[in-house]
Amino acid sequence: MKKVDHIGVAVQSIQEVLPFYTEVLGFSCIGLEEVASEKVRVAFIDAGNVKIELLEPLSEESAVAGFLAKRGQGIHHIALAVESIEERIEELKTKGIKMLQDKPKTGAGGALVAFMHPVSGHRVLYELCEKQNKSH
Amino acid sequence: MKKVDHIGVAVQSIQEVLPFYTEVLGFSCIGLEEVASEKVRVAFIDAGNVKIELLEPLSEESAVAGFLAKRGQGIHHIALAVESIEERIEELKTKGIKMLQDKPKTGAGGALVAFMHPVSGHRVLYELCEKQNKSH
Repeated sequence: MKKVDHIGVAVQSIQEVLPFYTEVLGFSCIGLEEVASEKVRVAFIDAGNVKIELLEPLSEESAVAGFLAKRGQGIHHIALAVESIEERIEELKTKGIKMLQDKPKTGAGGALVAFMHPVSGHRVLYELCEKQNKSH
Repeated sequence: MKKVDHIGVAVQSIQEVLPFYTEVLGFSCIGLEEVASEKVRVAFIDAGNVKIELLEPLSEESAVAGFLAKRGQGIHHIALAVESIEERIEELKTKGIKMLQDKPKTGAGGALVAFMHPVSGHRVLYELCEKQNKSH
């Protein structure tokens, strides 16, 4: 793995939380989008060397809605930037890592993403994230 | 704020968790130390653009032990790199942020640190961290 792409934070409402990041911490919001595959709205915050991704559920069926119901708002996952995500998935599986997805799916910004089972990450949810557009 | 210094992860045992970071993810462990003020042992992982700090409690009185008892292992906090930490604390307080420490204390690597109340961070525990030795 090369670096951390972003830190995911589950929130009830991006609108309520965003001023903390922009006005209090002084970071910039660099993108807002809806990710249909995850049933979430996301806001990307530029925190300098890494991004913070605010995740707001758009449906009760969203995994983020389940996280909020169980644990409340808070840090949700760490996304690791990778290249050749399918090879990385196979490599992790040979090392005994359990994946939540054997094949990548399309996440925010059109990135290819796959999550490790949190048991494999010692209860940290790690995402692999391969950007299609390297500009972000 | 300029950037994220590290992501703190609460673990029961650094020894058990470290191979996931070094052998599976392929990151390097760049430091191990005991932080008396927090009653924790910490391991710093170089994740490229940011560090991951594994936190293992050395006492039941440690805040990390309380976190583990209540929530189990997982992501504990996000530390923001700052300069002039005392000025930053005053500035945050004028913006309505509740701090857990009004004056910085000494954390890992001799850094000056202070935590915001998680209510102010919408249930993300944010730490301010001013490095005394800029080499890390």
